[in-house]
Amino acid sequence: MQTYLECYPCFVRQVLDGAKAAGMDTAQQHALLQRALGDIARHDIAMPPSELSSHLQALARQASGIADPYREAKAASTRAALEMVPRLSRMICEAEDPLEAAVRLSIAGNIMDLGVLQAFDLEATVERVLAEPFAINHLPALRQALAHSRHLLFLGDNAGETVFDRLLIETVGLPTTYVVKAGPAVNDTTREDAIAAGLDRVAEIVDNGNDGLGTLLHHCSAEFVRRFESAELIIAKGQANFECLDGLGAPVFYLLQAKCRVIAQHLNVPQFGIVLKHEQAGDGRVRQSAMAVGVTVREGDLSDV
Amino acid sequence: MQTYLECYPCFVRQVLDGAKAAGMDTAQQHALLQRALGDIARHDIAMPPSELSSHLQALARQASGIADPYREAKAASTRAALEMVPRLSRMICEAEDPLEAAVRLSIAGNIMDLGVLQAFDLEATVERVLAEPFAINHLPALRQALAHSRHLLFLGDNAGETVFDRLLIETVGLPTTYVVKAGPAVNDTTREDAIAAGLDRVAEIVDNGNDGLGTLLHHCSAEFVRRFESAELIIAKGQANFECLDGLGAPVFYLLQAKCRVIAQHLNVPQFGIVLKHEQAGDGRVRQSAMAVGVTVREGDLSDV
Repeated sequence: MQTYLECYPCFVRQVLDGAKAAGMDTAQQHALLQRALGDIARHDIAMPPSELSSHLQALARQASGIADPYREAKAASTRAALEMVPRLSRMICEAEDPLEAAVRLSIAGNIMDLGVLQAFDLEATVERVLAEPFAINHLPALRQALAHSRHLLFLGDNAGETVFDRLLIETVGLPTTYVVKAGPAVNDTTREDAIAAGLDRVAEIVDNGNDGLGTLLHHCSAEFVRRFESAELIIAKGQANFECLDGLGAPVFYLLQAKCRVIAQHLNVPQFGIVLKHEQAGDGRVRQSAMAVGVTVREGDLSDV
Repeated sequence: MQTYLECYPCFVRQVLDGAKAAGMDTAQQHALLQRALGDIARHDIAMPPSELSSHLQALARQASGIADPYREAKAASTRAALEMVPRLSRMICEAEDPLEAAVRLSIAGNIMDLGVLQAFDLEATVERVLAEPFAINHLPALRQALAHSRHLLFLGDNAGETVFDRLLIETVGLPTTYVVKAGPAVNDTTREDAIAAGLDRVAEIVDNGNDGLGTLLHHCSAEFVRRFESAELIIAKGQANFECLDGLGAPVFYLLQAKCRVIAQHLNVPQFGIVLKHEQAGDGRVRQSAMAVGVTVREGDLSDV
């Protein structure tokens, strides 16, 4: 997904949020903001918004010297989600359609996003997402894909949300690889966060070789890109993964809440609408890789990209 | 009032809003945004936010060649407000305290602010502002000042809101000078807009010599600054006037709704709180003029400014 001009105010807010999270004082925040405004002006809008957001967060981490400004927030999110597990498990077990319930809960967990929202109400979100109709509902396609796949590649998003993903992975029951970030990116889950959520008990945990938001294939490790390109079935959580992978032609099911107005408009759903969207495979090639240098492409040439 | 770093995302949004209002296409919006981001980075945060907002709006007008992008929106606001006059007049006449009712309605009119809000509900705002307690209430001081003054200098804000101001001026009954912008600044009232609202029937209309938001004394005409500095009693409407004049030591009563979070925090009131605030006169000097070149200062030297 390209960057919309409506993303620009949000980029500036993200810089400030990152600077504050890293404990910078006002003068430091101001200096960082000035530097960032120049970088924002130079952003290529053909790239997804998360490309720039990732850079801005890295700037804040570098300028502050704080490697993981959201570390405590992530741990608190994971603890809050873990406390809900007995109740969430019961909801899934008792549901008429356990897969749908687990999918909905995994989407509910996507509210734990400190990159887009400053605050969220997890309990209220669970109630809402369990009751509300899907804004986009490709559950039948997901059910079918799960029935015909031997393995699931699960692209994680935020810490805390990980706990909800664990319940979905348990419900699905397929051998699963759970993908985390190789380093801190706002409150995205790293290996440490995923282990705290118990993901190591239900999946193989791998990192994507990058500390950016979403899945920027051209920044990921060759090892991860290989896994991605050979995956039978991918579940990708959250807005940033959607931004990065939308239109790429990979076998992806996106699970997210359309928290920001830009994503909601792009998807033509109401803001905060709950989305289970099946990527239309198109010509079957991993097209975004074409933007990258040194990334292999699944098949064919790229002359028409 | 200084600029807070929390204003920065809003500056970017204002550029986009201005560009869209001026009918620029996406490529033109993007080019303007890139130019504006550099200017935002160079902004002196000791200056009020409206200094930069005014510049950004001027950029959009210049780049688009559209002199008054909000002309239609202003006319529509004035028409909507004029339709409410019979009902508003009756509310004031029948009120136990007509001055308080007229002040509240003038503050209600301050919701018609396209610089801060993308949309507003005027009818609902009137109901709310008539019923809600003031967040800051210096009405007794205003009542006393009105009883002891021979003239009122009224600094207008937005078109449409002008109609509500007219009712307050009629209720007060003092000889009044109503101040408009010398040229288009978002939906701030110009002479043409004020005449459409009937202000010429209840006040002398003068412009401040500037087409910026609020009252940036160092950009205003010497003639206006003379009026301002010799005024016995000033009513200043809206956020931008407050941003520009707060702490200046002039005999100002601010009437506004704290629509943005930054102003609300600065004033220590809830967002959308209704404010009637008396400027504390301090040392009696018009201090902000000290920042300007070529503006006379009421008294004393400026060595301690």
